[in-house]
Amino acid sequence: MIDQVLAHLDAEKKNHVKKLCDFLRIASISTDPERKDDIRRGAEWVDAFFRDCGLTSDIVATGGHPCVLADTGPADGKVPTVLLYGHYDVQPVGDESLWHSEAFKPTVRDGAIFARGAADDKGQALTHMLAVASWKKVHGTVPVRVKFMIEGEEEIGSPNLEAVLRQHREKLACDYVALSDTPKFDANTPAVTYGTKGMIYKEIVLYGPKQNLHSGQYGGTIANPGNVLAYIIASLRDADNRVTIPGFYDDVATISDKEKASIAALPFDEKGFQAFTGSPALDGEKGFSTIERRWVRPTLDVNGMLGGFIGEGASTVIPAKVMAKVSMRIVPHQDPERISKAFDDAVRAACPSTVKMELMTHAVAAPYVAPLDSPGMKAAGAAMEAGFGVAPRFTREGGTLPILPLFREVLGADSLMMGFCHPDCNAHGPDEFFGVDDFHAGIRTSAMFFHLLAEAH
Amino acid sequence: MIDQVLAHLDAEKKNHVKKLCDFLRIASISTDPERKDDIRRGAEWVDAFFRDCGLTSDIVATGGHPCVLADTGPADGKVPTVLLYGHYDVQPVGDESLWHSEAFKPTVRDGAIFARGAADDKGQALTHMLAVASWKKVHGTVPVRVKFMIEGEEEIGSPNLEAVLRQHREKLACDYVALSDTPKFDANTPAVTYGTKGMIYKEIVLYGPKQNLHSGQYGGTIANPGNVLAYIIASLRDADNRVTIPGFYDDVATISDKEKASIAALPFDEKGFQAFTGSPALDGEKGFSTIERRWVRPTLDVNGMLGGFIGEGASTVIPAKVMAKVSMRIVPHQDPERISKAFDDAVRAACPSTVKMELMTHAVAAPYVAPLDSPGMKAAGAAMEAGFGVAPRFTREGGTLPILPLFREVLGADSLMMGFCHPDCNAHGPDEFFGVDDFHAGIRTSAMFFHLLAEAH
Repeated sequence: MIDQVLAHLDAEKKNHVKKLCDFLRIASISTDPERKDDIRRGAEWVDAFFRDCGLTSDIVATGGHPCVLADTGPADGKVPTVLLYGHYDVQPVGDESLWHSEAFKPTVRDGAIFARGAADDKGQALTHMLAVASWKKVHGTVPVRVKFMIEGEEEIGSPNLEAVLRQHREKLACDYVALSDTPKFDANTPAVTYGTKGMIYKEIVLYGPKQNLHSGQYGGTIANPGNVLAYIIASLRDADNRVTIPGFYDDVATISDKEKASIAALPFDEKGFQAFTGSPALDGEKGFSTIERRWVRPTLDVNGMLGGFIGEGASTVIPAKVMAKVSMRIVPHQDPERISKAFDDAVRAACPSTVKMELMTHAVAAPYVAPLDSPGMKAAGAAMEAGFGVAPRFTREGGTLPILPLFREVLGADSLMMGFCHPDCNAHGPDEFFGVDDFHAGIRTSAMFFHLLAEAH
Repeated sequence: MIDQVLAHLDAEKKNHVKKLCDFLRIASISTDPERKDDIRRGAEWVDAFFRDCGLTSDIVATGGHPCVLADTGPADGKVPTVLLYGHYDVQPVGDESLWHSEAFKPTVRDGAIFARGAADDKGQALTHMLAVASWKKVHGTVPVRVKFMIEGEEEIGSPNLEAVLRQHREKLACDYVALSDTPKFDANTPAVTYGTKGMIYKEIVLYGPKQNLHSGQYGGTIANPGNVLAYIIASLRDADNRVTIPGFYDDVATISDKEKASIAALPFDEKGFQAFTGSPALDGEKGFSTIERRWVRPTLDVNGMLGGFIGEGASTVIPAKVMAKVSMRIVPHQDPERISKAFDDAVRAACPSTVKMELMTHAVAAPYVAPLDSPGMKAAGAAMEAGFGVAPRFTREGGTLPILPLFREVLGADSLMMGFCHPDCNAHGPDEFFGVDDFHAGIRTSAMFFHLLAEAH
């Protein structure tokens, strides 16, 4: 049965690119209040697509932008159910002058489709939609039950996703969540991402004198909030770049020998990676490789700092107020709330009573790791190898996807992340693109995935 | 002879206030390029004043705003020469809405003259000008030779003062420099200030990745310039608030028992001082009193810091660039160039090779302390007691006046700083004022000073 589907996909390549271009013409920028009609059009386009394929589909209103929920319907026999997650909203265009073709006039050149959303996430979401359409067209059915949840608020942090999930919990019941919103491992190798870090984001504000004071007249008489802030931040890590917050590492999962070996075996281009960052050297927690630090070790970073005189030249003030934004990326099995509190305790302990402190928490999100040995994970890996002709790398990400632990909590399902797009696809920058071959390989992968997942069960 | 002068001053009080108000009406803001005509008018007003008194006077062009040089001329017999320094330029008005009367419409209320420049420095400079005028009017002569140097660039850092001093070195030759550009010790007690700190002002800029990078994707793989900056700054002071730069304290003069006792005997209102700063507590180098730290101990302060994301909420970046402005106030006998280099060495030693550093020096100025036992210092103290009816306090300042070591270097003369204005006179803020009684007492002090200085020689 899969052979006929793959043959159909081959025959439909032109139409598929055309379909993607249709989708990409909708300027569904979720951050922009003036694009509300385009957001609506985006949801309607997705909804119509599903109805055309013969799925049931609804545009579900949320507290913000609507979400599209679709379903192939109950299947004959006992087949697994996959919930495919994606988003039809896109990032803003940014500086138009940096684009070589208009962001919402999709253009195919150099073997890629250029447009805002080409990779993130319209193009990648569409691979699965087209695979389902093909199965339905060729066989009238899909070998597994497929549900879709295509939201319109991913680029603004999915503020209403949890409410939708909880409200439609039974309707969305599934064995796996699958999504393509992460990149390939490198230009030639697709990736199955099985873990993301959690994040805790803090802001420390220190208040000293009631207003900026003259550093000559008052220097040496009162605490300088700038010096105190530096001291507090410096106290949070040691010379080995290990976080010094008491208990910070208590629950960090040790890397298994198998994972360590698998990471060490990755063809990771350290020099190329460093060159891309522009930093003079790679650096991080002592005793771990770059990828280990990136994927499986927790980190603590200053994200911003501000205080006192920041103009050109010299102004001799003791700042009245300084602030730093500091965030941590956490890993299994660190408990976000526990680490959040440990951070606060450590910062309060480091802060002298000679300044006043305000401590804010902007985000607390859990880390996520999916089991590597589930039938779903194996089917995803095998489907990718079939779709791309190259075995995928199983990767983790240093970034945070709060929806993954949410899916697990609300639906009890683990997530399979299949990365089809180029790692440097400019997802949030100018000239965002999705390789035409990657697009088609992604569709094949998705079609194969349904087939292999059904076989595995 | 002095009695007739004092009687004349008493009779002229109204005229003197009127004269000051005339001077204050000129909006001679040195930072504002649109006020160039007012600056010119300021210089002309001063020049005309001196000519009216019978002094020779010149408006000397500089690379910036002009400077007025005047002279009572060679005296009969061997009398000392005093160079009176002052400035006719003023600070900007700032937020006009905070003024209770217009900045350049001088208003007498509650026993004080309110206007920009009332205290800093038109009012205080004018005390000496009026004292000379009175001596000339009453006796046709002044008991010492008096020269004036009234510049127009003090509020922008006196960039051309050194050139003028060197060019007119012989013309400005003197035994003492005298100036009134510092405040009284407290509301009721005038002050002779005999020392100021030096200053070294640095800017540290750290560069990490070529652009702000995602703290999830890159956290733990490269050095974060924000964390590094905090570490560097924190490394510069220890838990006792002592500066840890090697050699920093090597040349610091120990406080003599006499000075220690004299400082301890000052009626210093610690609680009031702290309340004024608004800081939760006083703080500074362990082992020294607040005034000792303020006047005679060197300090190191963060003046500003900036980097990464500084908007509302959370943005997860590793900053590409961070900077901090850090300055030190130094004391005798610390060598500014040596301390400047020691700072650079310490910062470079603390900075890892995982970031790039740029280190800038915005200012290097020497500390200054005048001998307390010179005839001039004694005459200044006695004149103040006579003028104010209260013995002055001999004080030092945490601030920096680079012109003082310059006067000593170029003219070989020590400076006598006579503070007539209230310590909270809002010199750079709204509602700047000069107490009417302080103004008259300042004029009396100056007239007495000439008398006593002549007697002492």
